[in-house]
Amino acid sequence: MYTLWIANKTYSSWSLRPWLLLKALNIAFNEQLSYFEHGKSSREKFRAFSPSGLVPCLIDGNTTVWDSLAIAEYIAEDHAQVWPSDKTARAWARSSTAEMHSGFATIRSMCPMNCLIRTELDEITPELQSDIDRIDALWSEGLTRFSGEWLAGDTFTAVDAFYAPVAFRAKTYGLKFSAISQGWIDRMLKLPAMVEWVEAAEKELKINH
Amino acid sequence: MYTLWIANKTYSSWSLRPWLLLKALNIAFNEQLSYFEHGKSSREKFRAFSPSGLVPCLIDGNTTVWDSLAIAEYIAEDHAQVWPSDKTARAWARSSTAEMHSGFATIRSMCPMNCLIRTELDEITPELQSDIDRIDALWSEGLTRFSGEWLAGDTFTAVDAFYAPVAFRAKTYGLKFSAISQGWIDRMLKLPAMVEWVEAAEKELKINH
Repeated sequence: MYTLWIANKTYSSWSLRPWLLLKALNIAFNEQLSYFEHGKSSREKFRAFSPSGLVPCLIDGNTTVWDSLAIAEYIAEDHAQVWPSDKTARAWARSSTAEMHSGFATIRSMCPMNCLIRTELDEITPELQSDIDRIDALWSEGLTRFSGEWLAGDTFTAVDAFYAPVAFRAKTYGLKFSAISQGWIDRMLKLPAMVEWVEAAEKELKINH
Repeated sequence: MYTLWIANKTYSSWSLRPWLLLKALNIAFNEQLSYFEHGKSSREKFRAFSPSGLVPCLIDGNTTVWDSLAIAEYIAEDHAQVWPSDKTARAWARSSTAEMHSGFATIRSMCPMNCLIRTELDEITPELQSDIDRIDALWSEGLTRFSGEWLAGDTFTAVDAFYAPVAFRAKTYGLKFSAISQGWIDRMLKLPAMVEWVEAAEKELKINH
């Protein structure tokens, strides 16, 4: 069975992605949670299980997969439902997933994920609005073009998992999206695995603060 | 046939990656080069062919793949040699590739790729040294563990293509690597496709400056 190392469910958007993918697709795994260290980098601590010192990290027997997108592709080799079955939808899903993997620096730094709070931003800078607009355009395109409840069709795939933290950010910071995109956010926030994640985050808050 | 949109060969490290992968694996494609705009973002210009406004972007019939890593995975569906044939080596290669795709911000910003010049850095900051050390550790691990001339074994795969810009950076800025890693850099810089890239960059310099 896979072992997935993650960090705090309250904050770790990168941990959420493969965790949610595995849960939503009903793929069994052992969860290992290692808390971030306060006031300093956690890289040294995380190097005990992850060669880059970053989470998430998947262990499968003697194989270590230490990046969220590499984990998705590793799992996809044995579970076809990770990506859409249609070739064009799959290319779209992979491009959108990779764009999140390496991009959207402004929304990631200005709106850090905290799935437990509701707050207001002082301002929406042009750079932040540009990230929001691009995400909204991507989601709208996927939902329209592939005519499903999820971004690349009728089934939840890795591209949904990779944008899931933005659903939390939209709620936390009151970010405005188009109606079709807001529909996806609403469905995502009601997904049983997302509800389970938030409930676990609420418990870790009580333990650690 | 694939069409690959790229930007200036002198500077565009992200363009180099899929271009080199296709060339090194002898996969035919049409190259389309769109120059960066001077003194401003090229996103608006590049949106004519790339939905994110970024290069590289692959067109295959009606399908657009607008990210370097998504391009590698798209090509891999029809060309098994994109990734190592061994499952563990493939997981390692995908993790290392994804780590470059989303990380190493310091070396990318402090040592921008320019495959035509040789210069000196004023200082190697601790953050830059940390990036160099991590890359050196990754390369050494791959070259040792998979016992080949390339990072994940005997054949050139996508992980080599993704670290190729670091070979140019090592030469340009005189960055120091371990002997085993320097061996890979030397082989990479002599690869016919890399030599072809530099020769084309020399010609674009004469045209544009």
